Amino acid sequence: MTRKDIAGTAALAQARRRRADRARQVADVLRRQVLYGEFRSGALPAEAVLAREFGASRNAVREALDLLRAEGLIERRAGVGTLPVAEKYPHGLEHLLGLAETLREHGEVDNEVRTTGLITPSREVSSRLRQAPGEPVVYIERIRRLNGLPLSLDLTYLARDLGEPLLAEDLARNDIFVLLERIAGQPLGTAEVVLEAVNADPHSAATLDAPRGTALLMLERLTHLADGRPVDLEFVRFRGDRIAMSGTLRRTRP
Amino acid sequence: MTRKDIAGTAALAQARRRRADRARQVADVLRRQVLYGEFRSGALPAEAVLAREFGASRNAVREALDLLRAEGLIERRAGVGTLPVAEKYPHGLEHLLGLAETLREHGEVDNEVRTTGLITPSREVSSRLRQAPGEPVVYIERIRRLNGLPLSLDLTYLARDLGEPLLAEDLARNDIFVLLERIAGQPLGTAEVVLEAVNADPHSAATLDAPRGTALLMLERLTHLADGRPVDLEFVRFRGDRIAMSGTLRRTRP
Repeated sequence: MTRKDIAGTAALAQARRRRADRARQVADVLRRQVLYGEFRSGALPAEAVLAREFGASRNAVREALDLLRAEGLIERRAGVGTLPVAEKYPHGLEHLLGLAETLREHGEVDNEVRTTGLITPSREVSSRLRQAPGEPVVYIERIRRLNGLPLSLDLTYLARDLGEPLLAEDLARNDIFVLLERIAGQPLGTAEVVLEAVNADPHSAATLDAPRGTALLMLERLTHLADGRPVDLEFVRFRGDRIAMSGTLRRTRP
Repeated sequence: MTRKDIAGTAALAQARRRRADRARQVADVLRRQVLYGEFRSGALPAEAVLAREFGASRNAVREALDLLRAEGLIERRAGVGTLPVAEKYPHGLEHLLGLAETLREHGEVDNEVRTTGLITPSREVSSRLRQAPGEPVVYIERIRRLNGLPLSLDLTYLARDLGEPLLAEDLARNDIFVLLERIAGQPLGTAEVVLEAVNADPHSAATLDAPRGTALLMLERLTHLADGRPVDLEFVRFRGDRIAMSGTLRRTRP
């Protein structure tokens, strides 16, 4: 290559990087508008309109729409334009709520119970539930759906005295939280949560009807009764394309 | 196939599913132990020991270790065994903290500033920052590293009166939060956050030195001054394999 060719190639790479940067900026703002239903009534504005609105090139806008299409949030329909096709459901980080309680206004949650039973947990699980090693716990595995669409795969370990009566209840239609409070005769107190993003392994992906490698929002949650006793340890895999967690943080230094 | 063959195939599929289910259970508990440094001093227990501990088959344990290896959390070394190789850094959901403030005990955060400047934002950004349409804002784009490893890619929109003086500060070494408080002469108040899991697009993945499609923990955060004025809108892509968000939720009904 001549020196001029090299300079041309570098300039091209830089232009491409700049366009990708702009596309990401546009996509981040549009993602929010799609998720919060701003375009619920119809198509997104035309590319030219978006380009003006964002002060971006048509190519950058097209690339931004490609990103959101890859995330499964929008779809292009011939003769109609670009439509929002997904809705993410908000799950609160403020209050400790079961899924059906949280999503009441969005539709009906039903649970496919895959496994229930008494098991001898590993020491790690025993110690988090403050049980003696070897003491059995109740294990429940559920696929949770909203209006028929898979939202999450939940692995739950419960203290035996509360878990055994719970197995007699209608687990397909009720949040475990609500049942636990009824059985314990006291409200829940607090829960320690950890949130992570992980790529789905093939088996978890298949269970959630999602593509292999799909991003999952993984929630680990240890829930205590109001009296402080830890009774419910859960590992929840949410489909990343269907759930957003939201809340308010306060600037108080630890 | 004979009827017996079909029954055999079905039984095999069921056994495989059962093993995958067990592997996931084991992986979830081990993931936590790896992340919280339980095996920091050396290798994980041998497969046979883990199989006993979890009451699982060796095959299920092996599959669980495969899952954690695929997530980049552990590695197999010949003659040594299985070692934890990753550490996730905890980012608090309790308090509104900058990254360097949060990770102080884990090492040094430095920021590569990719872009800074005055831009005319889209109406969505203006309205969230409660600005008149067309009023310019300060835009900053940073790659944030902990001990040299990329943690996040941050896109930040700041109210102009605070953002312009901020550009004169050392952005490579300081959290924007700390600088904002100094410039505003008042502490920050609250922030509305939304957390999602998304697969990285190729360009974002490359920017974060991560494989294409890697799961990102995506944080959108609108931060207000103590007086309630929204001044800082951020879109942060955290590498899912490097950050876990943790906090405590309370059972208070909305």
